Amino acid sequence: MPNLTIPVEESLFLLKDVFGLEALNTLPGYEEATEDLVEAILNEGGKFASEVLQPLNMSGDVEGCQLHEDGRVTTPTGFKAAWDQFVEGGWMGLSADPDYGGQGLPTTLNVIINEYLGTANLSFSMYPGLTQGAYAAMDVHASDEIKQRFLPKMVEGNWTGTMNLTEPHCGTDLGLLRTKAVPQDDGSYKISGTKIFISAGDHDLSENVIHLVLARIEGAPAGTKGISLFVVPKFVPDADNNPGEANHVSVGKIEEKMGIHANSTCVMNFDGSQGWLVGEENKGLKAMFVMMNEARLGVAIQGLTQSEAAYQHARDYAKDRLQGRALTGTKNPDGPADPLIVHPDIRRMLLAMRSFNEAARAFCLYASIQSDIAHKHPDEKVRQIADDRLSLLTPVLKGYLTDMGFENAVLGQQVFGGHGFIEETGASQFVRDARITMIYEGANGIQALDLVGRKLMANGGRGIMALFQELGAYAEKHASDEAMAPFVLPLKAGAEDLQKATMWFGNNALGNPDHAGAGSVDYMHLFGTVMLGYMWSQIVEVALKNTDESRKSFFDTKLALAKFYMERTMPTTAMRRDRIMVGADSVMALPAESF
Amino acid sequence: MPNLTIPVEESLFLLKDVFGLEALNTLPGYEEATEDLVEAILNEGGKFASEVLQPLNMSGDVEGCQLHEDGRVTTPTGFKAAWDQFVEGGWMGLSADPDYGGQGLPTTLNVIINEYLGTANLSFSMYPGLTQGAYAAMDVHASDEIKQRFLPKMVEGNWTGTMNLTEPHCGTDLGLLRTKAVPQDDGSYKISGTKIFISAGDHDLSENVIHLVLARIEGAPAGTKGISLFVVPKFVPDADNNPGEANHVSVGKIEEKMGIHANSTCVMNFDGSQGWLVGEENKGLKAMFVMMNEARLGVAIQGLTQSEAAYQHARDYAKDRLQGRALTGTKNPDGPADPLIVHPDIRRMLLAMRSFNEAARAFCLYASIQSDIAHKHPDEKVRQIADDRLSLLTPVLKGYLTDMGFENAVLGQQVFGGHGFIEETGASQFVRDARITMIYEGANGIQALDLVGRKLMANGGRGIMALFQELGAYAEKHASDEAMAPFVLPLKAGAEDLQKATMWFGNNALGNPDHAGAGSVDYMHLFGTVMLGYMWSQIVEVALKNTDESRKSFFDTKLALAKFYMERTMPTTAMRRDRIMVGADSVMALPAESF
Repeated sequence: MPNLTIPVEESLFLLKDVFGLEALNTLPGYEEATEDLVEAILNEGGKFASEVLQPLNMSGDVEGCQLHEDGRVTTPTGFKAAWDQFVEGGWMGLSADPDYGGQGLPTTLNVIINEYLGTANLSFSMYPGLTQGAYAAMDVHASDEIKQRFLPKMVEGNWTGTMNLTEPHCGTDLGLLRTKAVPQDDGSYKISGTKIFISAGDHDLSENVIHLVLARIEGAPAGTKGISLFVVPKFVPDADNNPGEANHVSVGKIEEKMGIHANSTCVMNFDGSQGWLVGEENKGLKAMFVMMNEARLGVAIQGLTQSEAAYQHARDYAKDRLQGRALTGTKNPDGPADPLIVHPDIRRMLLAMRSFNEAARAFCLYASIQSDIAHKHPDEKVRQIADDRLSLLTPVLKGYLTDMGFENAVLGQQVFGGHGFIEETGASQFVRDARITMIYEGANGIQALDLVGRKLMANGGRGIMALFQELGAYAEKHASDEAMAPFVLPLKAGAEDLQKATMWFGNNALGNPDHAGAGSVDYMHLFGTVMLGYMWSQIVEVALKNTDESRKSFFDTKLALAKFYMERTMPTTAMRRDRIMVGADSVMALPAESF
Repeated sequence: MPNLTIPVEESLFLLKDVFGLEALNTLPGYEEATEDLVEAILNEGGKFASEVLQPLNMSGDVEGCQLHEDGRVTTPTGFKAAWDQFVEGGWMGLSADPDYGGQGLPTTLNVIINEYLGTANLSFSMYPGLTQGAYAAMDVHASDEIKQRFLPKMVEGNWTGTMNLTEPHCGTDLGLLRTKAVPQDDGSYKISGTKIFISAGDHDLSENVIHLVLARIEGAPAGTKGISLFVVPKFVPDADNNPGEANHVSVGKIEEKMGIHANSTCVMNFDGSQGWLVGEENKGLKAMFVMMNEARLGVAIQGLTQSEAAYQHARDYAKDRLQGRALTGTKNPDGPADPLIVHPDIRRMLLAMRSFNEAARAFCLYASIQSDIAHKHPDEKVRQIADDRLSLLTPVLKGYLTDMGFENAVLGQQVFGGHGFIEETGASQFVRDARITMIYEGANGIQALDLVGRKLMANGGRGIMALFQELGAYAEKHASDEAMAPFVLPLKAGAEDLQKATMWFGNNALGNPDHAGAGSVDYMHLFGTVMLGYMWSQIVEVALKNTDESRKSFFDTKLALAKFYMERTMPTTAMRRDRIMVGADSVMALPAESF
């Protein structure tokens, strides 16, 4: 896959023309994020991703990570050199706090850079991604002493971070966890237990690995109310804050996985390892949730990245591969056959992918702008509205974008026919790598439950009601515009389906929560479909206003993609609405023993 | 996955209670297929599959096939011993012609046995599957001399078969193929060329490999009209019909694939290899199509097998794994958590899989009974009707059942959460193995084109019109039956959607064939969804008539699954109808260079 184009032009279009850079650089502290600076950063980040990371993607998949007999874990050839370049470029600290050496730029820029890294090399992008997540949790919850000790090194990229939640007998249900923390006289704790599925759990990229570990302090209550969060370094920092003594943290094994082979997924053993409390005793889950929310947006973007890479890969093949003749007559009379791209079904697959990708990218930027507003806007009311919106949309982003990212990677593979099943083509890797995004950071069924069971009802439904008002007003404003109508009317219909399904939950799920559970994944998809339709409508608005002849082709493409989306993807909303509104009876009818 | 249950009970239910064994054993030549014999064969086959093949499934995936420096190909540990048992059991010849040593039993029984083999071990099942396909093509088209020479050995299982179609530059578009055949004085040909993606291309199971090879005789016309079919053995049979001289057939490499690692997918080099013409000169594609149609039904069943195995695997985990509490209150108060199966979304996934599996199994048996009738019925008119039906349904079976088989394997993996991504669980293998079924024997997009571009119109639309009449009459007959109505009314609605979409093609695709191409995959899915609904309705009929108290639970389960299918899967038909009827405009609008 030599021709990966990092979508810098698309990011800049969304930032400048659709959402407006002023949404970011009028926020206090973000004044520096001028057009020139943003362009320079995105171009540089795109270059790093395509020139340094992308060439390591397939070789990393083949080679994988290794656990050696002496306990060391090594990443695939080239990863360490790429990491050094990443650190030298200062990429880790792009939106980190200047107090810890960060550049203090908007989160949105970091989100875009993460998209580029993931598009080029998903496994690599997880090392910085997890470090950023650990940084975020510590930044909010840790004491100043801990922050001063760990965050500058993490912002540099010389130390990396992890999240240690899952244990062999508990993933989703963290209340069952058994890892123990025993208080010591010096205020620290001795942590003992086994954690599994620890991404980037150990490796040779950085000189230290900083584990955030959920554990139960001796004597703490059972269940989720007795869980605390600890920072447990691989090497205990010495007096000069260099990695000192080994901290009894070892790797039990590296898992053999379906994909993301170049990221080390470790079984981690803590055997009386020294750790320090982050946040309050028994409030560990709350502290971890900060990290998880950041991570969920990050994983949503990962879904997009694999769909984007798969699209470009399949598109190049479809233009190049000569096979068969167009149904409407020969298109390439001088060749032995026409290129695959003449065939409607090949186009259908490519357009499904691309019409998703561009709207999903807009949705991610939209969400990250809400995040920046929620953190930085001077007006508390504005912050709250943005926070409501982001909080509501997080499970939709994570669940819908990763389900679709995988589905699209499968479509891309299908374009290759038999060649798609052969590993050397590369199409299989996008499928295998994309698969994990539907599972980790909360399996998508859990996202859907979070959405219908928690987010819809939060603050008396304030968030969802505000969104419905906004969508209604938007449709009202544009429906009578003849040029906008073909886009806005399907959006309006989709939004009405979403509203009906929401009301149905309101009327039925309180009496029987299974009604919400049984429709939750359909609802998450219905929601995601409508949100991407909303993104497309906003892009269409910009396209229709364009008068710059040199950008005509760019905008014509946007209109064609939006049309395809409205005709082919939006009709799924009615089907999902109906499926939600049949309720849980046929789902719950069969007794467990009859399965 | 220690508890795989081969669905013998389900096959017998369908054969005896739903379709009636008399549909088979009243056919001339099939009188021996009595209830006792059928039960004995299926039980024995199920036992072989679960006890011999299933234990080799995961180890075969890990070990894979190997090409050694001396050119030999070996299969994973245990495969040769299993093959010997398979041969000894006489399984290869179950429905083969007694003239060549076969048992002459109905094809339907063989189809069921193939389902069992594939459920237990997809890679293994391909070795006999390809042999049966090669047998079928030779049986119809080869000369008596060739048949006497090769078929008895293949029926024994001492020689195996392959299909050599694809070349590096052509898969779907066989008109481009370059493999050459040079006539020799003795009536044979020298075959030279390279074929790729040759499943079971070489291995250590049998003493000879019989390749069916498409090649172009020197001087033959370009394109598909100059292609002939040849039989090219790995070793030329000697005077005693034992494997003699090596025939310049070598393996270039074994492909690294996403799945089916235990089947050797070979690059085959023919370097002046001796071959004999099968059928007429330049009519090779016609002869190969016999093999491909058999193979397509075989691949359809493979889709089902991976969905069935994934279902059982996920169901066992869902009953066993304790995680979280039911939304409606604790169901397992003595345990630390409730089993996964209390959660509506877990049930939704399992029910989607199982409500597909049972109807897909019925659909496969229905189709194979049509095949037996088409071959054996004394009345030509009855044979023709059955042949029309089978021919129409073949692309639906292959395309829909494999798309859904893969989708369901993905659902099964999702039930496992993080554990599903780890290879040692086994859930990933079903996904990786199922993926090829959507591609080989004609990628599913090609199946969809075959359906809308060829099968619908065949004989003036005789086949599809007969089906619509049958579905209409069925709905009419049962719609006013109160117990049947909840099942038949959704089926009726789905059939009407199918009819509307069909008429829309009739009115629009002649003028612009892209309208058929753009909606073809949706149409194939719409068609498959209706056919499974038809199967469920027929099962429900039987269930509603049951008065045997000892079978009540069995039939209650059928009714619950049918209900789920009607409520959750049938509503997709309207969405697909709408998507078909928007036509090709938005699919064809974007110029190729704008992709």
